[in-house]
Amino acid sequence: MSQTPDSAVRTYIEQHRTAFLDDLAAWLRIPSVSAQPAHAADVRRSADWLAAKLKETGFPTVEIWQTPGAPAVFAEWPSGDPEAPTVLVYGHHDVQPAAREDGWNSDPFEPIVRGNRLYARGAADDKGQVFFHTLGVRAHLAATGRTAPAVSLKLLIEGEEESGSPHFRSLVEERAGRLAADAVIVSDTGMWSEDTPTVCTGMRGLAECEIRLYGPDQDIHSGSFGGAVPNPATAIARLVAALHDEHARVAIPGFYDGVVELTDRERELFAELPFDEESWLHTAKSRAAHGEAGHTTLERIWARPTAEVNGISGGYQGPGSKTIIPSSALVKLSFRLVAGQEPEHIEKAVRAWAAEQVPAGIRCEIDFGPATRPCLTPLDHPALQSVARAMGRAFEGPVRYTREGGSGPAADLQEVLGAPVLFLGISVPSDGWHAPDEKVELDLLLKGVETSAYLWGDLAENWRPTP
Amino acid sequence: MSQTPDSAVRTYIEQHRTAFLDDLAAWLRIPSVSAQPAHAADVRRSADWLAAKLKETGFPTVEIWQTPGAPAVFAEWPSGDPEAPTVLVYGHHDVQPAAREDGWNSDPFEPIVRGNRLYARGAADDKGQVFFHTLGVRAHLAATGRTAPAVSLKLLIEGEEESGSPHFRSLVEERAGRLAADAVIVSDTGMWSEDTPTVCTGMRGLAECEIRLYGPDQDIHSGSFGGAVPNPATAIARLVAALHDEHARVAIPGFYDGVVELTDRERELFAELPFDEESWLHTAKSRAAHGEAGHTTLERIWARPTAEVNGISGGYQGPGSKTIIPSSALVKLSFRLVAGQEPEHIEKAVRAWAAEQVPAGIRCEIDFGPATRPCLTPLDHPALQSVARAMGRAFEGPVRYTREGGSGPAADLQEVLGAPVLFLGISVPSDGWHAPDEKVELDLLLKGVETSAYLWGDLAENWRPTP
Repeated sequence: MSQTPDSAVRTYIEQHRTAFLDDLAAWLRIPSVSAQPAHAADVRRSADWLAAKLKETGFPTVEIWQTPGAPAVFAEWPSGDPEAPTVLVYGHHDVQPAAREDGWNSDPFEPIVRGNRLYARGAADDKGQVFFHTLGVRAHLAATGRTAPAVSLKLLIEGEEESGSPHFRSLVEERAGRLAADAVIVSDTGMWSEDTPTVCTGMRGLAECEIRLYGPDQDIHSGSFGGAVPNPATAIARLVAALHDEHARVAIPGFYDGVVELTDRERELFAELPFDEESWLHTAKSRAAHGEAGHTTLERIWARPTAEVNGISGGYQGPGSKTIIPSSALVKLSFRLVAGQEPEHIEKAVRAWAAEQVPAGIRCEIDFGPATRPCLTPLDHPALQSVARAMGRAFEGPVRYTREGGSGPAADLQEVLGAPVLFLGISVPSDGWHAPDEKVELDLLLKGVETSAYLWGDLAENWRPTP
Repeated sequence: MSQTPDSAVRTYIEQHRTAFLDDLAAWLRIPSVSAQPAHAADVRRSADWLAAKLKETGFPTVEIWQTPGAPAVFAEWPSGDPEAPTVLVYGHHDVQPAAREDGWNSDPFEPIVRGNRLYARGAADDKGQVFFHTLGVRAHLAATGRTAPAVSLKLLIEGEEESGSPHFRSLVEERAGRLAADAVIVSDTGMWSEDTPTVCTGMRGLAECEIRLYGPDQDIHSGSFGGAVPNPATAIARLVAALHDEHARVAIPGFYDGVVELTDRERELFAELPFDEESWLHTAKSRAAHGEAGHTTLERIWARPTAEVNGISGGYQGPGSKTIIPSSALVKLSFRLVAGQEPEHIEKAVRAWAAEQVPAGIRCEIDFGPATRPCLTPLDHPALQSVARAMGRAFEGPVRYTREGGSGPAADLQEVLGAPVLFLGISVPSDGWHAPDEKVELDLLLKGVETSAYLWGDLAENWRPTP
């Protein structure tokens, strides 16, 4: 089935692993913390470093794309074959803040190998996972004797992901022509575990709002007026309580409109994963699973939309008591969305629902922030099958399927470019993203290189996207 | 019906009004702000001043009662008649903070008469209303030719009411023997309006609690875990929503146990008051009346128990959004109680109800603060009838009945001393308690003196309390 000899890829990787790891360590030494203005120059240095390395890798076009914030790096390497798919790899070169005193066992910006792990901020999120593509494409060329990749390859490595990607959407919109692709490969996620390689098929979207309820013009005395005027804190609580029905389903009329339901096959695939609820609860630091009736925990976090309270506030919150009816109250809600749900429709539904719920004498204001759309690639999509096959060859075993409960800028790529999003990540839950002692498993990192090396040939061979 | 010649009382008051107002002004000049430690010496000075004045008035026993906080003043003047009732007058000599720059038109501690009003902090709350009893008892003696009051008169004027009376309960318990009385007269309230003299027949009680719900051990990511674990902010909202049923009745099982319902006569009396809902809403700074079905606004604030949210809090409350499931959430609740409700029973009922409501995986902690009992004196109580008659003579017209929605330390006197509480206040809503330009209407202040002058004779004549 495959044209790329696996042994040739492995030999090439083995020969170049030391240089590859040395290069990655050099990059990890640059503290490209996008959230901290003091590191702005480091973020620029990180972009420059990566651009130089991509040039060295062989990309004929490498550009630094400035934004009003931190720069992104764009690279392009056309295939010789005009009918081959064009693939855009997405990742980011900025990292979360980190300091030794947060609980690190070594300097977060001085990479160190202990056992079979490389410890550094960004080792897994996301420099390691961006970087495996550089050796991957070289191995692909070396093993196949090609001078250009089998697909037309583009890379967009942004510099603000850890700051919420504030300029990403407009960057993608402005450069949509340069970024045009038949598929987007996101290498900023992970897999189930060391023993269970998986491909993620979708991410939930996100709509967020703040609802403010106003009652009396100022806090008033609960003795003089209690029991006789509407209390906005009570009203906000009743509003939140009305969010879910007794089956923990979201009770906003129209909320589930268009939801792409899980197929039986997907439910079976989720159920095949070695999920242990007790250890999952340990990770969730929670004491019970609770969610929409009729669904498993994995279905709830990956494939079902939610309404969660992120914050609630009103009246007196200090020590002791204060006998007031508060003047106002607010709640911050976030809705995770799944394929088929439109943020604009959700906003309309929430506004109509809230207007129905709020009692007379209470004024209601609702602000929605920018939304992120959900993305989902069907199991039988040829590009998804290529990713699974490439990963199966690298891991020499079966590949299973997951989804991602969170939301990310990948959805903007899907929407603006009109291309399916595929996830190729080799990180595992123990890698400590955003935490002290972030690391990457060296074996898995090299499996990422290998998967990347197989992927381009498999895609070119098995997929001719319809224009 | 009356033994005291009204004209004699009026003549006496007219003859002494200038000296009375001068004395009151001297007292009002002492900034006895109990909440501000810098004024601790002033509060002591206020107690000393009052003690000296009560001596001068004729009370044979006058004592300063120290507390761990500010001192109270106690005075006693036995009647010659061993079968006469013993009456304890309650008030306070401390005042709310006040500063010219808060919006006063004159120095709050430099009393000034403008028109027929005396402006100063404490003019109505509560020095003016305590002080009318001094001229009242002198007028009573002068008009009846007695050398001791017709009832055995006791005064307890505390110094910490504006600071929440933290030591009042224990003071009353320790001195219960000295304070023993057949009735308590509270002069720290008001009447309906200048044109509508009223007697208050009861006050609501108060139970307060903070309920804290704990979910995940720390805030967790709403993308990774949203929809699959219980959210304590959602749970607190559902708990609060379950506080009331669709008729705005408190839905806690057992909450209404023992509630003394309004009689038809009381409802009629409330309905006779010139209540204007629009102007009441203006005072409440609210846009709608809302409360227990089947009751008017006055019934709701005076005679019905309530559950109000004073504060609610959980998760992220800053600007923008934060996609978390919060680790915890809390609500501060206050319950206004009416006659027949026991705070201990309410606490038990709330704990049992909350335990039922809180979902699996959420830990619940509840703290109750000190409670205040409700008090209510039946309309046909002889002592209440005496107060109404004395007021009717002073105001030369009908007296109507109200209740008070707030809660106060008077309830401690009722409970510890086992005596009914009667309210004799001449303040009106426009007097500006706790606000800039606090004032007392001079005409009403002198009506208070006159009521006090009639009351003791009426009580002695018409009431022989059963021991």
